[in-house]
Amino acid sequence: MAKEKTLSDLFHDTLRDIYFAEKQILKALPKMQRAATNEQLQNAFEKHKEQTEEHVARLEQVFEFIGKSARGKTCEAIKGIIDEGEEIIDEYKGTAALDAGLISAAQAVEHYEITRYGTLRRWAHELGMPDAVKLLDATLEEESQTDEDLTSLAEKTVNQAAQTAKAA
Amino acid sequence: MAKEKTLSDLFHDTLRDIYFAEKQILKALPKMQRAATNEQLQNAFEKHKEQTEEHVARLEQVFEFIGKSARGKTCEAIKGIIDEGEEIIDEYKGTAALDAGLISAAQAVEHYEITRYGTLRRWAHELGMPDAVKLLDATLEEESQTDEDLTSLAEKTVNQAAQTAKAA
Repeated sequence: MAKEKTLSDLFHDTLRDIYFAEKQILKALPKMQRAATNEQLQNAFEKHKEQTEEHVARLEQVFEFIGKSARGKTCEAIKGIIDEGEEIIDEYKGTAALDAGLISAAQAVEHYEITRYGTLRRWAHELGMPDAVKLLDATLEEESQTDEDLTSLAEKTVNQAAQTAKAA
Repeated sequence: MAKEKTLSDLFHDTLRDIYFAEKQILKALPKMQRAATNEQLQNAFEKHKEQTEEHVARLEQVFEFIGKSARGKTCEAIKGIIDEGEEIIDEYKGTAALDAGLISAAQAVEHYEITRYGTLRRWAHELGMPDAVKLLDATLEEESQTDEDLTSLAEKTVNQAAQTAKAA
């Protein structure tokens, strides 16, 4: 009989899920950056890409901690989230609402990451892996900060532009 | 030439996205409830189902505010998130780690809802629709509370059980 699956397996499965997701996000961010018209938003995507590279490296360290090779597992959730973002680029390209849509798409990505890193950090703690907790927590903090920064950016500038265009 | 798309169109598209998502969640929750072994977790899913019915009704009111019929638009993101939850049920059924996995899946659902309602509330404000802001905000508050409740439940009980089984 196969050995019963445990919380350690769940941790490993979810690590593979977010590893796949981060790699997909790395590919999607340059497209979002190119599509953005607001310079602050372009810079936000550039910064997020740099951070994502660091997040991938941290995940590879966590794979090492558990003695597994760093290998992703197809994550349909992030594929769907990214597809919806690409649909917004297609449908709103050239309109004043595009940046607002891009922020919305980027925040959906952030929230997926926030929930997965939150779960992994909790499980790393339960499984007695303080070094993994530290790495996962560092990434979680950055994802939460990025989400807040995107909200501020949306409130300050981008929606205003969309509304102005609408009123014009 | 087609009329240029605006923030109002983006609001309508996203409303249709989350309306589809809520309906999918309504179908998924009873399966998650049946799969859960912890009684508090079963109750949490039951409560979430009741709240989701209310969230659907609120969305229908928002559709009315903008003079559109309540119609969903396929949301690949929520389909992926729910599929991943069903995969956990299949792979962890009968193990002590199942409830931890179910909580993780439910929190991914919550975070998708949190990001979409956060965006819709912001846009409703920008578009000058205070009544819609109120409804969207009420739902957002409930989704955030559910997410926090699931974290507490995970920390208090479920992961402990998974760990105990692992040590046994």
